[in-house]
Amino acid sequence: MPKLQKPPFESPSPVQLIAKKRDGHEHSEGEIESMISQFLAGTLTDYQMTAWLMAAYLNGLSQTEMRALTLAMLNSGRTLQLPSVSSTKVDKHSTGGVGDKISLPLAPLVAEAGLAVPMISGRGLGHTGGTLDKLEAIPGFRVNLSAKEFERVVARVGCSIMGQTTELAPADRRIYALRDVTGTVACRPLIVASILSKKLAAGLDGLVLDVKVGRGAFMKDARSARALARALVETSRALGTPARALLTAMDAPLGLTIGNALEVRESILLLQNDGPSDVTELTLELGAEMLVLGKISRTHDEAKKKLRSLLESGKPLERFAKMIEAQGGNPRVIDNLKLLPKARSTSLLYAPRAGRITEIDSLVLAEVAVQLGAGRKRAQDVIDPGVGFELLAPVGHEVSRGEPLLRVHAKSPGAVRPFESALSSAFSIGAKGPSRTRRLILGRIEG
Amino acid sequence: MPKLQKPPFESPSPVQLIAKKRDGHEHSEGEIESMISQFLAGTLTDYQMTAWLMAAYLNGLSQTEMRALTLAMLNSGRTLQLPSVSSTKVDKHSTGGVGDKISLPLAPLVAEAGLAVPMISGRGLGHTGGTLDKLEAIPGFRVNLSAKEFERVVARVGCSIMGQTTELAPADRRIYALRDVTGTVACRPLIVASILSKKLAAGLDGLVLDVKVGRGAFMKDARSARALARALVETSRALGTPARALLTAMDAPLGLTIGNALEVRESILLLQNDGPSDVTELTLELGAEMLVLGKISRTHDEAKKKLRSLLESGKPLERFAKMIEAQGGNPRVIDNLKLLPKARSTSLLYAPRAGRITEIDSLVLAEVAVQLGAGRKRAQDVIDPGVGFELLAPVGHEVSRGEPLLRVHAKSPGAVRPFESALSSAFSIGAKGPSRTRRLILGRIEG
Repeated sequence: MPKLQKPPFESPSPVQLIAKKRDGHEHSEGEIESMISQFLAGTLTDYQMTAWLMAAYLNGLSQTEMRALTLAMLNSGRTLQLPSVSSTKVDKHSTGGVGDKISLPLAPLVAEAGLAVPMISGRGLGHTGGTLDKLEAIPGFRVNLSAKEFERVVARVGCSIMGQTTELAPADRRIYALRDVTGTVACRPLIVASILSKKLAAGLDGLVLDVKVGRGAFMKDARSARALARALVETSRALGTPARALLTAMDAPLGLTIGNALEVRESILLLQNDGPSDVTELTLELGAEMLVLGKISRTHDEAKKKLRSLLESGKPLERFAKMIEAQGGNPRVIDNLKLLPKARSTSLLYAPRAGRITEIDSLVLAEVAVQLGAGRKRAQDVIDPGVGFELLAPVGHEVSRGEPLLRVHAKSPGAVRPFESALSSAFSIGAKGPSRTRRLILGRIEG
Repeated sequence: MPKLQKPPFESPSPVQLIAKKRDGHEHSEGEIESMISQFLAGTLTDYQMTAWLMAAYLNGLSQTEMRALTLAMLNSGRTLQLPSVSSTKVDKHSTGGVGDKISLPLAPLVAEAGLAVPMISGRGLGHTGGTLDKLEAIPGFRVNLSAKEFERVVARVGCSIMGQTTELAPADRRIYALRDVTGTVACRPLIVASILSKKLAAGLDGLVLDVKVGRGAFMKDARSARALARALVETSRALGTPARALLTAMDAPLGLTIGNALEVRESILLLQNDGPSDVTELTLELGAEMLVLGKISRTHDEAKKKLRSLLESGKPLERFAKMIEAQGGNPRVIDNLKLLPKARSTSLLYAPRAGRITEIDSLVLAEVAVQLGAGRKRAQDVIDPGVGFELLAPVGHEVSRGEPLLRVHAKSPGAVRPFESALSSAFSIGAKGPSRTRRLILGRIEG
């Protein structure tokens, strides 16, 4: 009704906002801000938000919209200032993989090098594990800290890992919960806004992103992973936080374990400089990026050399124990792995024929792990921290027929039976002969 | 996870259903049925439905999906059988226009010719008026009948007009309410499913559709109106109810009144064979379609002649009075128009210059009528039945400067002031000279 006079400015109505994105137009920054504040105030409802999210999924968001959305979601809650933390604050975020326990050894290792690591992490949902679930496998460990406690731990230990509180990016919490149940998760600008609004709420000086690509990752191909990495780095920088990203392979699982307590154990072994080579390598690579970004080291090589010698010193492991203790956990786990929870039953999966392991489908292993209780099918499911897998024959290994491929940790001896053929099919066994080297780092985006 | 065994059949999860439409795939009939039943059971939530609705809006629905959706929504409630009604049951539905009071005279006229008219109508929302709101301008008139009462009135009087009860197509009620606030109204397959699920729930033998096209209609161009008409006719037939449609013009308002009590008055005048020519003509045209569809007449011309002579007999007006009485209203309104509610204030709008009225923008008039209280801005708004407009100079009329164009019925003398220039702009005044004839019927779809 163009001919009727209207007041000079009104905030756009929910229907106007939805219709604009539905019709493929670009929102102004003010509109995005208005949308998020109306959503938090309850005048834009959940069922209106999901209609907008689907329109955004199908019609896309521009760079400007993505940045405005990130900022609006970040500003929906408080931003931690951590005044008592004097060191440069750098964090790492991974888009999620199978067997990805990197955060556990990385935080104390990098803190040992002089950075502060205030890490806000998530839980596992779907096939990828969550850092918080892994830490909770440590008896007594608390991931729900107040902002004050978190600051105290970071100031004292140099690193802390906690969950997203209701104060930090509350719009992201609510929007993510809606995306998860409306098929709107796999949308690049929404992923960027979700990751960055949460991470930047910790008041960082720098952010390193580990964007995984492959069968077991969220991004199945290098092209979409690279586009996500670029969008993350650019948006973070545009909002004032320097960032860089690595594209890393996620076809076979990372390391030799999947499952919460088993991955804590592997993390401790890594900090004892006795971890699997791939996890150790990736931890050093990501750590080196953090050190350069945080201006602790001038070059990547210098940083990596520094981290390797720190790892040999054993000090990062002691720092990990301090962080565990500061967050209510039993620090003696680092000396006595038997203190970690165990599943009631273990069994072995055997190679059906001789050959070289050419591929391991991490997605299948992860899905079965969830079925066995290592992860959640629904948000309210309770995890069994002892459940999981030990890879006895990783990619590149030669096996004889009947040799064990996998040790299964399950709640009962019968639990794995329905999944045995699926597990077996996860291993591709080829002809014997020289093995190809597995590339771990597929690309680097420095913005 | 294709390699894991799954139970042989599971109903698709809400996320699977949404993702399928998001990705542009076609649902099976079973999936559509499952979606609606999960929605009614509450396991598919409002915020999931709106995500699906937006995906359907943007990616479309096939004929099969549209038919399955209509059927699932129809089957979400009961279907009236009306066993005590022996006549052929035929109804009319209009997609909504400005000044469209046709249902009021049409139902008793067609009932007089021997059809039963069990009409389930809606309220006005947005700029188009609602038949129920008009009827409620008659003192005492009840539109909320039980299925039993409705059947009794149809059996006794031959026609009844009531609102959609909670028993009839409850899925449509809930989905329509969501579409209204999520920008997903203007979507042809959703419109078809909404109209037909509601109308066919009355257990019809035939349905005539009045698809309006023009400035004051939902469909602004003939092409989209024709596509909607075709989809309605084909889907109705596919579900076993013969149907036909007329495309009719909705640029200028229909008749000489806009507003609830004013339109009841005009309907009574029409049944006294003293109505404006355009409303009378359209009533006869739609009525003739109903008579042919209901096999009362063999040809359109024969039907129209029959209806014209019935109109002259005065009997349809008596039947209208009987329907009013049977639904709790005061039947004496037909003899005493002063029994209808009146607005507190009337004023005139004058022609700013001399000329011939070439166009009247019905959308502007309707929007101002809503602002003045003749319609609802929000679902919970209360209507003032007396508020509205009388057109004193319809399209084709020659006016002198300062001659009245419009009589405004408002709540107070000052109420119309802010809208006077908008009202004035609704009238296009051209050079004097011969007037073009206004075409009312733009097309006919017989399926």
